[in-house]
Amino acid sequence: MKLYTYFRSSAAFRVRIALNLKGLSYEAQYVHLARGEHRRPEYGALNPQALVPALTDDGGLLTQSLAIMEYLEEKYPSPALLPEDLLGRARVRSLALLVACEIHPLNNLRALRYLVNELGRSEEEKNKWYQHWIHDGMAKLEADLARAPGTGRFCHGDTPTVADCCLVPQVFNAQRFNCDLSHAPTALRVFDECMKLDAFQRAQPSRQPDVE
Amino acid sequence: MKLYTYFRSSAAFRVRIALNLKGLSYEAQYVHLARGEHRRPEYGALNPQALVPALTDDGGLLTQSLAIMEYLEEKYPSPALLPEDLLGRARVRSLALLVACEIHPLNNLRALRYLVNELGRSEEEKNKWYQHWIHDGMAKLEADLARAPGTGRFCHGDTPTVADCCLVPQVFNAQRFNCDLSHAPTALRVFDECMKLDAFQRAQPSRQPDVE
Repeated sequence: MKLYTYFRSSAAFRVRIALNLKGLSYEAQYVHLARGEHRRPEYGALNPQALVPALTDDGGLLTQSLAIMEYLEEKYPSPALLPEDLLGRARVRSLALLVACEIHPLNNLRALRYLVNELGRSEEEKNKWYQHWIHDGMAKLEADLARAPGTGRFCHGDTPTVADCCLVPQVFNAQRFNCDLSHAPTALRVFDECMKLDAFQRAQPSRQPDVE
Repeated sequence: MKLYTYFRSSAAFRVRIALNLKGLSYEAQYVHLARGEHRRPEYGALNPQALVPALTDDGGLLTQSLAIMEYLEEKYPSPALLPEDLLGRARVRSLALLVACEIHPLNNLRALRYLVNELGRSEEEKNKWYQHWIHDGMAKLEADLARAPGTGRFCHGDTPTVADCCLVPQVFNAQRFNCDLSHAPTALRVFDECMKLDAFQRAQPSRQPDVE
């Protein structure tokens, strides 16, 4: 397997965690997002979506972090990153999507750049935007985690799932932008549990060979 | 099944299509997003994420449109909205996520309101922002659809999948904001195919009892 990754991409971070949890080794190919390497024609020829991460396996190219994790779950089912029961699976996916659809897209590099470069917003306004969506999204996540009986040592139960693979990179991002997460104590408690595991530690940005 | 829906929510629109394609009937509960009904405490008590859609089934509450569609696929597998082969499933999910993570979140109601109310942007700038993300995201979608051998009558193959359930509401939104989609002819061709089907027609905003 070849993983197209960038140390700071939180979507790539999700997939690095999932691969580590499943004990799958991969060859890393570095795509420097801040330098726009994903927009090079060679990369577009490989991945029409021109985004990171992408994973090659079995002669195919897989894109979108959540689709890649679903693929890994179907192809390499053990250890499982989704529970067995249908409502549990739906909850885990919903938590993962809450991060992937409601928080992350508003705060990724190209959205922030558009605010500054096209809409002429200041660094202060950009940071306010960032912190607003983190605060709002983490409040929704916390409301679910704090209340649902399914929450355990991790987001759902006592083993890591794709929800944890999404939560951890999001918390890393929030911390990088100095966001106050004191309104999300359960999420932070789960984050700390995850970071006790080598699979999460090894996947973090500072441990990647392309870190700057 | 009870579906918490709003006629203009494109995430709810996705689920309405999926339910129709699977021939599942549901009782609609209307949550008026523009009036902020999703932020009422009663709704938050039911759905901690305080978003639409949500679906009740089997004693559980399901949230996030893509998680709901995965649940429907697992619980009511026929007709299938995902192909059988792993790479095909991954492609369909990736196309769905491209819409759900890269286009829609930047353009939903609360993001647009923040631009206007908090960042003081004009209607013109708001529309430029909207059109930018539609243009960018639809270009990525088109690049995939136009090139991949898996594209058929629909986004993947000759039967509708969850990718089509996401594509159609996104095209509706784009049209509502007068976005030029001439750079996405394959996506528009697939959209037209979808709209020949009753399941898509019946799910569209103008056909909902809560339309305004």
